[in-house]
Amino acid sequence: MRITKRPHFIEFGDCDPAGIVYFPRYLEWFDAALQNHFRACGLAKADIIARWGFVAFPVVDLKVTYSVTSTFHEEVVIETAILEMRRSSFVVRHRLMRGETVAVESVETRVWAGRDPADEKKFKGGAIPEEVRRAMEG
Amino acid sequence: MRITKRPHFIEFGDCDPAGIVYFPRYLEWFDAALQNHFRACGLAKADIIARWGFVAFPVVDLKVTYSVTSTFHEEVVIETAILEMRRSSFVVRHRLMRGETVAVESVETRVWAGRDPADEKKFKGGAIPEEVRRAMEG
Amino acid sequence: MRITKRPHFIEFGDCDPAGIVYFPRYLEWFDAALQNHFRACGLAKADIIARWGFVAFPVVDLKVTYSVTSTFHEEVVIETAILEMRRSSFVVRHRLMRGETVAVESVETRVWAGRDPADEKKFKGGAIPEEVRRAMEG
Amino acid sequence: MRITKRPHFIEFGDCDPAGIVYFPRYLEWFDAALQNHFRACGLAKADIIARWGFVAFPVVDLKVTYSVTSTFHEEVVIETAILEMRRSSFVVRHRLMRGETVAVESVETRVWAGRDPADEKKFKGGAIPEEVRRAMEG
Repeated sequence: MRITKRPHFIEFGDCDPAGIVYFPRYLEWFDAALQNHFRACGLAKADIIARWGFVAFPVVDLKVTYSVTSTFHEEVVIETAILEMRRSSFVVRHRLMRGETVAVESVETRVWAGRDPADEKKFKGGAIPEEVRRAMEG
Repeated sequence: MRITKRPHFIEFGDCDPAGIVYFPRYLEWFDAALQNHFRACGLAKADIIARWGFVAFPVVDLKVTYSVTSTFHEEVVIETAILEMRRSSFVVRHRLMRGETVAVESVETRVWAGRDPADEKKFKGGAIPEEVRRAMEG
Repeated sequence: MRITKRPHFIEFGDCDPAGIVYFPRYLEWFDAALQNHFRACGLAKADIIARWGFVAFPVVDLKVTYSVTSTFHEEVVIETAILEMRRSSFVVRHRLMRGETVAVESVETRVWAGRDPADEKKFKGGAIPEEVRRAMEG
Repeated sequence: MRITKRPHFIEFGDCDPAGIVYFPRYLEWFDAALQNHFRACGLAKADIIARWGFVAFPVVDLKVTYSVTSTFHEEVVIETAILEMRRSSFVVRHRLMRGETVAVESVETRVWAGRDPADEKKFKGGAIPEEVRRAMEG
């Protein structure tokens, strides 16, 4: 299982009046970390779109555990791994690490989706292309 | 169980390049809906702070199911209810409704926390005051 | 000059560790207020796109004056007006009102832009359609 | 004049349905860049607060020029400099650079503010401490 580690610096504007990171912000960082993970696998989003048409990876299920709070001007590390590849979906795990401590962990299921041919404004799930699957598992 | 219903208009800036709501935004709206729910229970945050000192309700656990996407310039309704009150934590459920359809559902556990007397920069959980408990259950 | 007034409730998550609204948030609200103003003029964004192809109104110039801070759980009013219509751009003014006081004022120049036929990934400015112009001035 | 240069990677979630950076996001990045500039001057925010009590640098005036759009998965550089130090305020300039091109430029006036002794919930401007001034000019 390939784990990418991405340093992340917490900014003042990410924190709320209680002085801690506003909890939805972590999910933004994890989303960015996933795309960083894709790049590390040789799969830039622009390339994916160019080769397989419009695609997105909408989250369908998300479980987050917040164990330790963080505040601004701290540097943490986000560790990302694909836990499981299915036919048309995959499971991702992110861990926000403060040194050796898992401060926040998210496990999310995402589906591979393109434009629905029947209604261009909607998405439609589909099988993950073999080449993408191999790159992610690599 | 008291359920508050809050209309919510989705803005352009809440959506991502795929044209759908960027998924962390829902959690911001749900957080706002919880504070709205507190007000409906007669518990404004400013009053809580004034009476019980600094308090926050940090999320410790979160489970979100995204079933239907939404896009900008749609009006939805957010339904919020306290599912369970415990000694020092409580469980909240939010549902983003598109008409009769549950588009997104979040179940979150939050703790009642004040300043840690041993370290002012940290939080410390504690028992939810009886008066707050009664208002929330009311 | 048509002025639309939109009530706006300030949420906890919009505020920073200093306890006041994080200053970029105002621009998000003003952007939403402009789209609300368009709707009040009979110009919903979806209709505009359907009739004139893909269009956006990117901001090219922005001047903001922050006079009075605000905090969470306050209700303010955003007043929006088109100050000037030019051939391919327009000037918008937003005022965040606390009662009779102008707390924040923004004057922004936006251009009317569609997809660049020479490069689909780029925008290209163009003349504002007569029908849009009339609706905005109306 | 000291100029700090900070690389910045643009994420998917920073972009809007038009596929470009949602314009208020630049101001969040510039705000973070200013605090990074302070650190480069030897002035970490935590230290400032520890030595001079609670302080903030609220923006009172902002002028932004957006010349070139950017999109996700691009790396840009943010250049930050203090243009002018006054008794109780200072003027900051940020430039978002795409190679040699200034894509976005912001000039902002910020005041040095502490808690108002007469009303703890309000800020009150004051003279910038000599030591801070020297560090910033250094």
